[in-house]
Amino acid sequence: MLQIGPYTFESRLLLGTGKFSSLEVQRQAVEASEAQILTFALRRMNISDPNQPNFLEQLPLNRFRLLPNTAGARTAQEAVRIARLARASKLCDMIKVEVIGDSDTLLPDPVATLEATRMLVEEGFIVLPYTSDDPVLAQKLEEAGAHAIMPGASPIGSGQGILNPHYLKLIIQRSRVPVIIDAGIGSPADAAQAMELGAEGILLNTAVSGAEDPVRMARGMKLAVEAGRLGYEAGRIAKKGTASASSPVEGMISP
Amino acid sequence: MLQIGPYTFESRLLLGTGKFSSLEVQRQAVEASEAQILTFALRRMNISDPNQPNFLEQLPLNRFRLLPNTAGARTAQEAVRIARLARASKLCDMIKVEVIGDSDTLLPDPVATLEATRMLVEEGFIVLPYTSDDPVLAQKLEEAGAHAIMPGASPIGSGQGILNPHYLKLIIQRSRVPVIIDAGIGSPADAAQAMELGAEGILLNTAVSGAEDPVRMARGMKLAVEAGRLGYEAGRIAKKGTASASSPVEGMISP
Amino acid sequence: MLQIGPYTFESRLLLGTGKFSSLEVQRQAVEASEAQILTFALRRMNISDPNQPNFLEQLPLNRFRLLPNTAGARTAQEAVRIARLARASKLCDMIKVEVIGDSDTLLPDPVATLEATRMLVEEGFIVLPYTSDDPVLAQKLEEAGAHAIMPGASPIGSGQGILNPHYLKLIIQRSRVPVIIDAGIGSPADAAQAMELGAEGILLNTAVSGAEDPVRMARGMKLAVEAGRLGYEAGRIAKKGTASASSPVEGMISP
Amino acid sequence: MLQIGPYTFESRLLLGTGKFSSLEVQRQAVEASEAQILTFALRRMNISDPNQPNFLEQLPLNRFRLLPNTAGARTAQEAVRIARLARASKLCDMIKVEVIGDSDTLLPDPVATLEATRMLVEEGFIVLPYTSDDPVLAQKLEEAGAHAIMPGASPIGSGQGILNPHYLKLIIQRSRVPVIIDAGIGSPADAAQAMELGAEGILLNTAVSGAEDPVRMARGMKLAVEAGRLGYEAGRIAKKGTASASSPVEGMISP
Repeated sequence: MLQIGPYTFESRLLLGTGKFSSLEVQRQAVEASEAQILTFALRRMNISDPNQPNFLEQLPLNRFRLLPNTAGARTAQEAVRIARLARASKLCDMIKVEVIGDSDTLLPDPVATLEATRMLVEEGFIVLPYTSDDPVLAQKLEEAGAHAIMPGASPIGSGQGILNPHYLKLIIQRSRVPVIIDAGIGSPADAAQAMELGAEGILLNTAVSGAEDPVRMARGMKLAVEAGRLGYEAGRIAKKGTASASSPVEGMISP
Repeated sequence: MLQIGPYTFESRLLLGTGKFSSLEVQRQAVEASEAQILTFALRRMNISDPNQPNFLEQLPLNRFRLLPNTAGARTAQEAVRIARLARASKLCDMIKVEVIGDSDTLLPDPVATLEATRMLVEEGFIVLPYTSDDPVLAQKLEEAGAHAIMPGASPIGSGQGILNPHYLKLIIQRSRVPVIIDAGIGSPADAAQAMELGAEGILLNTAVSGAEDPVRMARGMKLAVEAGRLGYEAGRIAKKGTASASSPVEGMISP
Repeated sequence: MLQIGPYTFESRLLLGTGKFSSLEVQRQAVEASEAQILTFALRRMNISDPNQPNFLEQLPLNRFRLLPNTAGARTAQEAVRIARLARASKLCDMIKVEVIGDSDTLLPDPVATLEATRMLVEEGFIVLPYTSDDPVLAQKLEEAGAHAIMPGASPIGSGQGILNPHYLKLIIQRSRVPVIIDAGIGSPADAAQAMELGAEGILLNTAVSGAEDPVRMARGMKLAVEAGRLGYEAGRIAKKGTASASSPVEGMISP
Repeated sequence: MLQIGPYTFESRLLLGTGKFSSLEVQRQAVEASEAQILTFALRRMNISDPNQPNFLEQLPLNRFRLLPNTAGARTAQEAVRIARLARASKLCDMIKVEVIGDSDTLLPDPVATLEATRMLVEEGFIVLPYTSDDPVLAQKLEEAGAHAIMPGASPIGSGQGILNPHYLKLIIQRSRVPVIIDAGIGSPADAAQAMELGAEGILLNTAVSGAEDPVRMARGMKLAVEAGRLGYEAGRIAKKGTASASSPVEGMISP
């Protein structure tokens, strides 16, 4: 079970809702993914009429918990303002802090992310900051009260997979709150690898919405997350430089 | 569906039966894996009484197809002799050619493997040679009539995963018979990666039997194979050096 | 030529002076490295008597420029105090900002590093901050006036080489001040790789002082830095998925 | 010193002579590389008039030993015929066996390479077979009498570097004749890595002739080979998961 603040989830796959070719494909992909947490950029919503957001109409909202993000914010203050709007809309009290540091890489701003996290924790939000894979920054976010840490595997939408598994593992081993790998996952093997590092969950979007067959990929990702988690729990064999026969060499037949 | 010679299988996971801590654990792991093809070293069987092999007693044999291997053979001739014994026992007409080239690495002997494959194809066997990841040798094995090619990911039992994905991909792209990745798979992420390269299946043993919880790992591997295959079929996104927003940057809210 | 603030250097290898087995080995390694910039932790010096620092006695100081670091500092304020002591000793006006974020990984504190950089630039130092491989933080350091950016390849003394070449390359491509790869380099191949990414220099210490033969390794590193730089300048061939004959296939002899 | 059969060389860099933009560039690159062994495809020579081969005119032949290769051969018999022509021309008694297995990848044919090696050893040649990175095949080539083993790093001309360092290291550790890494080296870092694995030398061609500045790259490669060899001899530090301060933490100053 994935526990974030007061909420528990059976699914460890968080799905973003951006850039699907149609609302119908999005709906089917969400269903195939069996995700229980859906993320979206609040600025994409029709916030003047929060009861009628377009994509939410398609989804049985009682089955999901929504995780709005602060995409578009360039400063901590902007992130806080967007988070307050999200809360005012009564969509959810969870917020994904996303303060982009530059528009080329879409990598997060470490200083503003930390600042926004501190402010939103103080305001009583359930705060999940999107961060780089810097282990020191991850600790500072935890100390600031973040309810989960969301380090990126590689730049958003790049599909490059996990660029630095060593630092992600460091973050996971030292964190007392859940670590959810966010951004850059490209394929089910990436997702399984993230879970085998000990992540409590992964968040992805483009890898599903941008696949040739998004619904099939959503199901592949769902299975990969479960497979990787089982692999983590089952205790994998150590890597060995030398081989080791699965069929013992002694006792050869001499026909 | 995986098609090998005249046989078709829904499962793409082939499981080896060596080195389980008990026959009961083996039985449960086989069940959790949902494998339909089980491999074993013929020399480990009680071949003087082929109706009473120990591990086969535990398994509902009508649900599986058996794939005996020629482990222990050091020459093509020895491999052929073992294969004939397997056929005489009426266990199966499929044979995994395994001629080890040296006892340190347990890597296959390329020349003897090719020779044994030729001889066994001529004798009417369904032949699946275990081979290195050499793309030229893989083509020669196909030309010799092999019904599937089984290149190793890394040395047997090493758990090192896929050492050379580039050559495995070359083998897969150029082969007209199924390619089944054999040996070296250590975790579900490795299994998913193999399937995403386009493999038709994987064979593993130590990664399951040597895990702390073999039954849980067997289930993880089953899901990983399906996840990787779905990822392959679904058409993953291309890897990009630059980032790409899942939440379009235009249209930012100005609260 | 490497240009840092007002200084130019022919050598692109910066050598740390810690942990050599003897001052004589240190002296020989420094000579073999042909380094022109030597780094050391100021707190290791006998600062009450700056004319008699132990290791400096052994070296012809007119041939080197010294780069004291602020190792031991846990806050920006401590780093600034150490830097002032360094300047007071008249050793050099260059300072390597090193504010460690935690004692397990020795990775830098991103927030304090940025703060110390700002303060030291204001005080007129030539400032070279040791930082993580976070591309956004690197940009902030440059904007803060850093005279060079020193991202780590992997944790100090770990010898793991370059964990994330992608982010180092991003930092290099976008920086207008020199990027010097610091920490984690383990071997000449790592050093060459760093230079091929386009780094203006590398700083290393443990890879030399901890080698079985530090003097020989120092020479290897010197050559590797030159080799990698030449490789960068010479414009390497693109990586190709397919092969390409160095001996044209047409015109075969028919003996 | 590199020892191949009865010959010794100070340089560990073997340079191929194909595909340079002009004979003058080739001459300068050869000089910058300080190579003592030059390879070329015999079929590219004007063998009816062996005293007037075009590229050899440009080079002070007394400074080099020539290593003709059998490129163009598709069978062991063809390779042997080409080798005999090379010997008849009195160019050298060393021969690089190159029997390509398919024209897409230019990877070697393992069976024909082994056969040609056996035949040429019997005829008294100094035989250097170009082979895959299959450790078992490498041992067979050594047993067949090869005077050096030349495993490829990746396909010829691909510049992909070392695809499987694990198998190259296995080959090197178990071989009693020199191992020279051939094919696929793309940059000085690749060359240094090959030498750090313990190779006795490397052979390259396209990485130099195809660089934007071949002469500069030739010098970079020369330095990289020396750097990597020094790194191998100097005994590098072990890779560590945890960091280790180059500036001891005790004894912090308290200014």
